[in-house]
Amino acid sequence: MKPVLVRELIGETLRELRFAQGRTLRDVSTAARVSLGYLSEVERGQKEASSELLASITAALEVPLSVVLLTVSDKLAAAELKTRMARAA
Amino acid sequence: MKPVLVRELIGETLRELRFAQGRTLRDVSTAARVSLGYLSEVERGQKEASSELLASITAALEVPLSVVLLTVSDKLAAAELKTRMARAA
Repeated sequence: MKPVLVRELIGETLRELRFAQGRTLRDVSTAARVSLGYLSEVERGQKEASSELLASITAALEVPLSVVLLTVSDKLAAAELKTRMARAA
Repeated sequence: MKPVLVRELIGETLRELRFAQGRTLRDVSTAARVSLGYLSEVERGQKEASSELLASITAALEVPLSVVLLTVSDKLAAAELKTRMARAA
């Protein structure tokens, strides 16, 4: 089983938040002052977001970064449990 | 007030876990297969740890990465609250 990477869960969470707000990549990238290509790569888990840009993106989404990390921690805990159960099986 | 960066909280948390286990930088860097200099920079919040190396370091510390992120989320929530209170004052 391929291990889940934090950047993939961060990207997935940011994308879910953006979709929930019905916003486009262009809108959020402009608000966060990051390039559209960069934001798209971060959302797809292809690029590590620096701490500064992660703060800008979550500010643009008007969601506290702590809440994004809590969501990522929850998703990761579920993935870790799945891995442990697969190993035990 | 200088905003708190995620990499600083990740570094602080990794260092606290290492100290709590009474382990040296050398021990953990060897177990995680990262260079001692890199681990030291990550712990001091000077370098962003990639998702892969973060997974290696937490595996070396025998702590689920989800638990590290939960701790970071808690620390960040406290810092966010402090910032909001300072702004409201």
